Amino acid sequence: MTQNDLSKRLFAEWFGTLALVATVVGSGIMAETLANNNVALALLGNTIATGAILVVLITMLGPVSGAHFNPAVSAAFALKGALSGRLAVFYIICQIAGGICGTLLAHWMFAAPLLQDATHLRSGIHQYGSEWVATFGLLMVIFGGIRHRPDAVAWMVGLYITAAYWFTASTSFANPAVTIARSLTDSFSGIYYGRYAVFYSGANAGCLACLSSCWLVICTD
Amino acid sequence: MTQNDLSKRLFAEWFGTLALVATVVGSGIMAETLANNNVALALLGNTIATGAILVVLITMLGPVSGAHFNPAVSAAFALKGALSGRLAVFYIICQIAGGICGTLLAHWMFAAPLLQDATHLRSGIHQYGSEWVATFGLLMVIFGGIRHRPDAVAWMVGLYITAAYWFTASTSFANPAVTIARSLTDSFSGIYYGRYAVFYSGANAGCLACLSSCWLVICTD
Amino acid sequence: MTQNDLSKRLFAEWFGTLALVATVVGSGIMAETLANNNVALALLGNTIATGAILVVLITMLGPVSGAHFNPAVSAAFALKGALSGRLAVFYIICQIAGGICGTLLAHWMFAAPLLQDATHLRSGIHQYGSEWVATFGLLMVIFGGIRHRPDAVAWMVGLYITAAYWFTASTSFANPAVTIARSLTDSFSGIYYGRYAVFYSGANAGCLACLSSCWLVICTD
Amino acid sequence: MTQNDLSKRLFAEWFGTLALVATVVGSGIMAETLANNNVALALLGNTIATGAILVVLITMLGPVSGAHFNPAVSAAFALKGALSGRLAVFYIICQIAGGICGTLLAHWMFAAPLLQDATHLRSGIHQYGSEWVATFGLLMVIFGGIRHRPDAVAWMVGLYITAAYWFTASTSFANPAVTIARSLTDSFSGIYYGRYAVFYSGANAGCLACLSSCWLVICTD
Repeated sequence: MTQNDLSKRLFAEWFGTLALVATVVGSGIMAETLANNNVALALLGNTIATGAILVVLITMLGPVSGAHFNPAVSAAFALKGALSGRLAVFYIICQIAGGICGTLLAHWMFAAPLLQDATHLRSGIHQYGSEWVATFGLLMVIFGGIRHRPDAVAWMVGLYITAAYWFTASTSFANPAVTIARSLTDSFSGIYYGRYAVFYSGANAGCLACLSSCWLVICTD
Repeated sequence: MTQNDLSKRLFAEWFGTLALVATVVGSGIMAETLANNNVALALLGNTIATGAILVVLITMLGPVSGAHFNPAVSAAFALKGALSGRLAVFYIICQIAGGICGTLLAHWMFAAPLLQDATHLRSGIHQYGSEWVATFGLLMVIFGGIRHRPDAVAWMVGLYITAAYWFTASTSFANPAVTIARSLTDSFSGIYYGRYAVFYSGANAGCLACLSSCWLVICTD
Repeated sequence: MTQNDLSKRLFAEWFGTLALVATVVGSGIMAETLANNNVALALLGNTIATGAILVVLITMLGPVSGAHFNPAVSAAFALKGALSGRLAVFYIICQIAGGICGTLLAHWMFAAPLLQDATHLRSGIHQYGSEWVATFGLLMVIFGGIRHRPDAVAWMVGLYITAAYWFTASTSFANPAVTIARSLTDSFSGIYYGRYAVFYSGANAGCLACLSSCWLVICTD
Repeated sequence: MTQNDLSKRLFAEWFGTLALVATVVGSGIMAETLANNNVALALLGNTIATGAILVVLITMLGPVSGAHFNPAVSAAFALKGALSGRLAVFYIICQIAGGICGTLLAHWMFAAPLLQDATHLRSGIHQYGSEWVATFGLLMVIFGGIRHRPDAVAWMVGLYITAAYWFTASTSFANPAVTIARSLTDSFSGIYYGRYAVFYSGANAGCLACLSSCWLVICTD
């Protein structure tokens, strides 16, 4: 890989995560503002915008960097051996930075304070379990899709997240970089972890470990 | 078929039905909780999540097991001779088990009692007739799709169920394994059959018989 | 064309129009019943179901009969010389019969009186003009799609009708067979033409005449 | 390029922008009329109709004229050297004329006064910034899509605008021709710029300049 190639990949990861988080946070603000306190309607607007932008970003940036936009995905690729450890670290740094920039951009567009403390508590074992399920499912979809229908992965991820916003109690972040970015907004999509944030990270780590073995059995042979 | 191949197929049927039911039940709970008693809005959230996950699951697991997730589909394939009777029985057992696990998972994620008695009565000749129509249509779509556009079947089934949630009076289960799983939840998507459950099964059996002949005429020649 | 081939085509036109109308009318009843008098929400449910089933039906039955389901489309094909006049007449009879059966089926599934007199008045020059626009646009989409992207026609028609439900004042029937079928229901999707029904037919005929010349200029050369 | 070819291209740009604006304005009127003052619901109807018609129009007219429907897009193509300056000017004139005709058509279909003064003020630095973001994103999507997945551009633009209606504070016009057309309606989708319209144009020009350099770095090499 040339230096130029590396810059482009990292730019794509930064830009894609920025655009994803700006959409998640921005559409959350828009939807909550307009929905007259009907949370289902706000979630619907949030869902449609997020699902749509995911398809667009993965289609557009997939050929550049793989379009991970998600430390869990980059870590899984590294575990699988499809991404060097060093590159995975670079990817994850760009994703976290991009996510934070995305929150800032959404706040700026809606004329809100740039940095906010999330107070929307989403804690407890069931929330963590939901996240585990959502992340596990996302990795299944990505690796299953790459194996069987690589041209369909962008649609599959967009549709999976569309469903996961509704079927998990936590509205499915399934993405540590997005989670960090969402802890910086006090709007519809904000997250406050409370005291168990460490456990949450543990759950995600466990998820990855479990996945890597499970996935070896199912998706490959 | 090797032993390894068989395990993978049965795992795919179990896992796919689990994920489908977890989405149907989970998104039903989420939608009903948030929708301020507007049932159309709750059904919309339920519909979008179900349609989206169907496209994902069929695209991902179709190449492994055929992605039936539905005893009516497996039975129709067996009648057509495309699946051995013994394998169809294994498929159906995995689908029913997966469906029940899906309800349990959704209840756990939303911190609800794991097993519940459905009280949402959906009974009477019109409801059974709606189910007949929905199941018949689903089989038409699957067999017509496999014949003319096999690459489009995942989308076709997802979109068909999206429509069928709205055009049938019963919100279209069209799937005995999902029906059993939904009789174990007392949430938005729960089903209580009442005294005519036997008749209902009869209607489904009749549907299959009728279909197998009708389908011989239309889809093949 | 063999006799067997003809029967299959006519069956496909009858069945497809039946399924389309059953979805339009059935989802209209479902949506209106659940939407707590919020007509935009009812129209949203009606739109999503109709758009979804159109993609499914055209993908499934397009290879059999061309999937017209619409006398305006069959007439345009006949004007273009792509369908014999005799076959076009047979198509149109099957479409009208299928549409009426679709209304009956929807009413039966929802336990409503089988035949009803529509009282939902949609009359006046602006409504007729909207219909003209909707029908003209539909024919543009079909002929433009067949010329440039024949594999995408099913999606294009489904998405076009999704948009046309909202951008025309008449919620876009654009289909004489569906219009007749909808004049037999007094539910959400019912139509009462009033005294100007004759003029309406004239507008549709004019549309076809205008289209056939316009389309010669644009889509072919 | 023959004279006949040129006419067809210009007709396609005029017609496509007309249909796009008629959908944006018409579905806005329909949605606002029906939504019982729930603005999120009205925006949802507006979003779905706009996203759907964009996919249809770009699929249908892309092979004819490139399906720009947007002076910003034509200008970017001209900057890139993929469109002659003279043709770009013709395109832009047809787009502006088509947009105005689209507003007139929508008003006529809904029996509203044909020309109206917009009073829906969308002004201030955050609104202009949102427009900048939306236009920049749109150009990224178009050029990234053309480079990597030309067959997917129609879907990508439709989905991008679906998301951008929600993630920007300005509901994302991202299109000077559509903006002019929307300043002529006082309905849901109307725009009144107030005193800073000049600055707004400046922002768009800056966007194009910035884009052309940025895009040289990322999308080409």
